[in-house]
Amino acid sequence: MRSLLLVTVAAAVLGAAPAKKPTPGDIISGAPASAWRTIDADDLMVMNLATGGRIVVQLAPDFAPVHVANVKALARGNYWDGAAIYRVQDNYVAQWGLNESDRPWPAGVTVKPPAEYTRALKGLAIKPLGYPDAYSPGVGFWQGWPVAYNAMAGSANLTHCYGTVGVGRDLAPDTGTGGELYAIIGQPPRALDRNIAVIGRVVEGIEKLSVLPRGPAPMGFYPDKTHYVPITRIRIASDIPAADRPTFEYLDTDSPAFARFLQLKANRNDDFYRVPAGGVDICSVNVPVRKKTT
Amino acid sequence: MRSLLLVTVAAAVLGAAPAKKPTPGDIISGAPASAWRTIDADDLMVMNLATGGRIVVQLAPDFAPVHVANVKALARGNYWDGAAIYRVQDNYVAQWGLNESDRPWPAGVTVKPPAEYTRALKGLAIKPLGYPDAYSPGVGFWQGWPVAYNAMAGSANLTHCYGTVGVGRDLAPDTGTGGELYAIIGQPPRALDRNIAVIGRVVEGIEKLSVLPRGPAPMGFYPDKTHYVPITRIRIASDIPAADRPTFEYLDTDSPAFARFLQLKANRNDDFYRVPAGGVDICSVNVPVRKKTT
Repeated sequence: MRSLLLVTVAAAVLGAAPAKKPTPGDIISGAPASAWRTIDADDLMVMNLATGGRIVVQLAPDFAPVHVANVKALARGNYWDGAAIYRVQDNYVAQWGLNESDRPWPAGVTVKPPAEYTRALKGLAIKPLGYPDAYSPGVGFWQGWPVAYNAMAGSANLTHCYGTVGVGRDLAPDTGTGGELYAIIGQPPRALDRNIAVIGRVVEGIEKLSVLPRGPAPMGFYPDKTHYVPITRIRIASDIPAADRPTFEYLDTDSPAFARFLQLKANRNDDFYRVPAGGVDICSVNVPVRKKTT
Repeated sequence: MRSLLLVTVAAAVLGAAPAKKPTPGDIISGAPASAWRTIDADDLMVMNLATGGRIVVQLAPDFAPVHVANVKALARGNYWDGAAIYRVQDNYVAQWGLNESDRPWPAGVTVKPPAEYTRALKGLAIKPLGYPDAYSPGVGFWQGWPVAYNAMAGSANLTHCYGTVGVGRDLAPDTGTGGELYAIIGQPPRALDRNIAVIGRVVEGIEKLSVLPRGPAPMGFYPDKTHYVPITRIRIASDIPAADRPTFEYLDTDSPAFARFLQLKANRNDDFYRVPAGGVDICSVNVPVRKKTT
């Protein structure tokens, strides 16, 4: 610390501007290439809207393997031809699919998947967040995902944050197939954790969903099909020709760059922030994910 | 408990449907009139958009008295004539005002207000939430408001939740006048707590803000004034003729009904929710506020 202080004093003596305090954004832009991990093209779902927007979802096969396999089979079986966004509830969800269709399931779809609401904690080397959580005895990160866990129960689950994508279902024991999906567009509805299958998160285009008109019927449904937002197509990125395929990468949550990013997120103290919070919640960390341009 | 169990057994024996488990919504609709508190018309700011929408903000004079007095003086001095929404950043804020105008301040405006980022804890009988918070040693409710507090420091502040309204400012020590306001339209940016003056919360029409197109410039600004969303007028409800004046009430956070509501929010266990969370965060409680129809 002393040498840093001396540098500051020297700069002050010389009249130079003091070093700007780094922001979380500075850490992202300064992170070395080695701190980024490419997302497998087989784990990206690409959804195009008739209005021109594109939404890309990173799938989480390590947390809901059967539901994620279903999503891939549904995409590859063209199940979602003619699908639409048919529900948008303010501060909650945008939901899409066929909405009570009797279209046959494509090959490879498990019609009654198990309740993949949690998975075994074993096998996940979770980096703890380090701040308390109102919903779970433990929260942290694993391979870029925000995770809640319970060491006593030996279980873990993805947390419902802004942009989280899950599987619509009726009342339990139905777990949904993956044919109807929702994305969170408001405050994290963490009470859904462990009650529904989470299959991933939006890594591009969440704002194409969050701006949609809220549905006037109960729970945000569009009562009139003319208000549906048509989906042109849903594909898995690995099925798209390489030249047109979007590629994304996330900041390795085990990297020193992420540790520094997390420390700054919990202690904003720069030109604007004068009182560091001294903590951050699991959803507000927003693990950096970006489009890979090279 | 035993008598309740007997009733259930009897119902089962008789073949009647078991009693439906109550939801938080059931508690709201069943709360007695005595559990509701009317919001003073002098503490409601009514904002009309040229697009037809109306936004109503409950002001919090107990937390930022000078800034709230400014907002009332600005409204009454017609300062916001020609104002607009000029910034909408996804998962963060919608912001409105005159945006770098040199219009003179109306009478009664304190041009350099004190930093009302916190207030004394003394005088607030806070009902604790009862679950941990990542940002503050204590969180709870006072007269319907979500509050963070620090007993050691003797300070308290309103928390940044979905719908919270605060005062835009430049870098400290500037605290803003109240001429530029923002509302939260995404995950609670709790790091802003204690760094900015909070003057209230949206009690009607937040979805008129959350659906607006996100600004394409950095921080969500609309670079082109033709994209601004014009504001027709901003008034304090007590200045509106009684017949046209909207009236709102909140569920008394010291009432038994609120205690039951809170308990259910933290332990959803009904036809849809099978695994109660066992906790809830301060922002997700969403203290019930409704339009008064009588």
